[in-house]
Amino acid sequence: MKVHGLIEDLGDVPFSVEPSMLRRKSRDYFWYSQALAEDLAGKQADVIVTPRDEADVIRVAALCARWRVPLTPRGGGTGNYGQAVPLHGGVVLDLSEMTAIADVRPGALRCAPGAKMHLIDAELRPGGQELRLHPSTKRTATIGGFVAGGSGGVGSVTYGGLREPGNILAARVVTLEETPRVIELRGDAAQKINRAYGTTGIVTALEMPLAPVWDWVDIALVFDTFAEACAAGLAVALADGVVKKLVTPISWPIPRYFGPLAALAPEGKSLLIAMVARASMETFLSLVRGGEIVHEADFDESPAATPIYEYTWNHTTLQVLKSDRNVSYQQCLFPHDRLLESVAEMDALFDGEVWHHLEFIRFAGRVTASALPVVRFTTRARLFEIVSIYEKHGVFVANPHVFTLEDGSRHKRAEADQLGFKAEVDPLGLLNPGKMRTYEPMRA
Amino acid sequence: MKVHGLIEDLGDVPFSVEPSMLRRKSRDYFWYSQALAEDLAGKQADVIVTPRDEADVIRVAALCARWRVPLTPRGGGTGNYGQAVPLHGGVVLDLSEMTAIADVRPGALRCAPGAKMHLIDAELRPGGQELRLHPSTKRTATIGGFVAGGSGGVGSVTYGGLREPGNILAARVVTLEETPRVIELRGDAAQKINRAYGTTGIVTALEMPLAPVWDWVDIALVFDTFAEACAAGLAVALADGVVKKLVTPISWPIPRYFGPLAALAPEGKSLLIAMVARASMETFLSLVRGGEIVHEADFDESPAATPIYEYTWNHTTLQVLKSDRNVSYQQCLFPHDRLLESVAEMDALFDGEVWHHLEFIRFAGRVTASALPVVRFTTRARLFEIVSIYEKHGVFVANPHVFTLEDGSRHKRAEADQLGFKAEVDPLGLLNPGKMRTYEPMRA
Repeated sequence: MKVHGLIEDLGDVPFSVEPSMLRRKSRDYFWYSQALAEDLAGKQADVIVTPRDEADVIRVAALCARWRVPLTPRGGGTGNYGQAVPLHGGVVLDLSEMTAIADVRPGALRCAPGAKMHLIDAELRPGGQELRLHPSTKRTATIGGFVAGGSGGVGSVTYGGLREPGNILAARVVTLEETPRVIELRGDAAQKINRAYGTTGIVTALEMPLAPVWDWVDIALVFDTFAEACAAGLAVALADGVVKKLVTPISWPIPRYFGPLAALAPEGKSLLIAMVARASMETFLSLVRGGEIVHEADFDESPAATPIYEYTWNHTTLQVLKSDRNVSYQQCLFPHDRLLESVAEMDALFDGEVWHHLEFIRFAGRVTASALPVVRFTTRARLFEIVSIYEKHGVFVANPHVFTLEDGSRHKRAEADQLGFKAEVDPLGLLNPGKMRTYEPMRA
Repeated sequence: MKVHGLIEDLGDVPFSVEPSMLRRKSRDYFWYSQALAEDLAGKQADVIVTPRDEADVIRVAALCARWRVPLTPRGGGTGNYGQAVPLHGGVVLDLSEMTAIADVRPGALRCAPGAKMHLIDAELRPGGQELRLHPSTKRTATIGGFVAGGSGGVGSVTYGGLREPGNILAARVVTLEETPRVIELRGDAAQKINRAYGTTGIVTALEMPLAPVWDWVDIALVFDTFAEACAAGLAVALADGVVKKLVTPISWPIPRYFGPLAALAPEGKSLLIAMVARASMETFLSLVRGGEIVHEADFDESPAATPIYEYTWNHTTLQVLKSDRNVSYQQCLFPHDRLLESVAEMDALFDGEVWHHLEFIRFAGRVTASALPVVRFTTRARLFEIVSIYEKHGVFVANPHVFTLEDGSRHKRAEADQLGFKAEVDPLGLLNPGKMRTYEPMRA
């Protein structure tokens, strides 16, 4: 078998064929979607290779080309799109041991793809800087996995998503060829690897912009209605004079599933969750006067604490899943020019089947809201039907129930020629074949 | 005469009745408007009083109430609206000696109204902070004058104007009564003194938000057309991933008047001027590819240097006035939802009579552009006619050719009950009577 030949040539590059390891490292959190759980069931790597540095990556890439073995790069495995799942076996390249932080300067750093995001921030904070954006899975996610699979997150209310100019400064990729090349993608060009799930080159270094650290306050308020929580959240999102990192209205009954925070949200009420700079708190509070503060704490990411961002973005779905496995979710972007109207319209449509929570973000310079509504699961067909209902009502959807890049990304997609670039870096079509479904390999 | 009685009661509070001093301290740069030059000609204080501290202010306020003498507060006198001109004589209260900086903390400071803005920044910068907003007259303007008469400026492309929540944290005012009171206005309430020209209380302290300092770069590029410079500027203004402080497209022939910078702008071309954080320069340059860099320098506010912001906002008019006194200006805000169309429409209307330059700003959370177009002066009637042409085309105008608060402020006006507050702090109607023309004193 080809993989055995490849393994024999690995030399001292660490690898594992241990069954539990193969299972564990061939997965991510795709099972939030019952459709993906079905479609990706049992798909598994033949070997997990764990490079120590770029030289190891180049060696593995060359071997995969020579032996015609698929390669799927992965980071922390915290994504929801099956980006870590090898559709046709082969090598899963676990980049989580490549963690070096190389070059911190004012406004930017360079680092290896496996650096955990919360460790990057922990290292940077004493110097007064932090990452601009992170997912709600920050405490386990790697920077490479976030850039390759994410679209934005905490911080996007200020800086927009990863697709906005300046939110990925550069990426270094290794091509999958008999003689791999190393390509530095700067500026716009770096978008070629954004949300491409590792199918457009193996990322071995990233240059990311940094933000000034503020003394963040985690805060939650209750409002009588979801509409009021949304209106207050929008006022905060539009307030350029308020320094903030997260603005998230959450409708009942979601707060019921919020563990320690659940006790604070009375039956039927909605929450507004936010991260605000202490220096902006007085102004923030003047904008959310209709709400009642039920939680206020210094930002704390230490192991015993639960930072408030772990109730937002797709962690909201996770909080519900902890006590009810029969839910799924949806991914959408509301139109900026009729934002609250569109949210109210969708929220009225589903009679308890879809529970909304919004993430205010900037998108192309405008304030709008993306959302990951929790969906009570009935059938696979209904999941897709719900997608089309949103679309019919003028809401953009990035369907999280499909596993290919083309079908799922949509508005989260970078504006870059990822297909054309793949032809250059993956002529044999070995970077997780099938994930970019429209790609036809240049060579057999 | 009442003023003589007042002077006798001043005790050791410094004052002057020296004629050149009376003339100089009763003026600002209102003469940019030929209409104001006419209307405000010869208006002059009877005495200039220069308080050393709040106790002095209280003493003068009490004396003005007792003697029924008008009082007009002033700062650096760099405004263009005649805010320093006493319409009915009396005391001009020169606050420029009250310069203390009291309480610098992360994200905010408290200071006396006469603190010069460039000196505040010079003091803060080693600690990594600076003011969010400043006028183009920063090197001579006081913080109190800016807040009492300004609306925004350099920094507004990121933080919006002074009217946005959080851009004035608090103001302390002394009332004009026989027994003056001291009132602390926090948050929204502080807007009662924003752009009220000192008619709603004598500001004796301000609490202002601070921004992180970046390593700013002054840059200018030339574009073939004004439309191209505007489009590039808008792309930058909309890029939330680019850290910036100023984005100013300037149409030909304005650059001809730009002294040392004039040589760099070829005949017929337009400029784009910007202040960008060094860490964002690569991204910035990718957004303005159609332009050619003609100037790039480290930000420098030292006496021998000319920071690039001194070619923008109303300094643009000043640069032209240096060699051609026959110009005036206009003040407007373009509609955010048809921004470039509206600019192109207005720019095509005047056949060389109006020269446009834009200031990209955030206004109520949206990117738009304010502008201070240079106008070739013909007649007073034509100045007002131009105002109405803008308004007819759906552009908001804050007419700079009238001297009352109500007629001039318009979209620059704070959303606060300034008239109601004036009744509380100035029952006798002695704070520059006539400046807030709709105010009827509560008592004679």
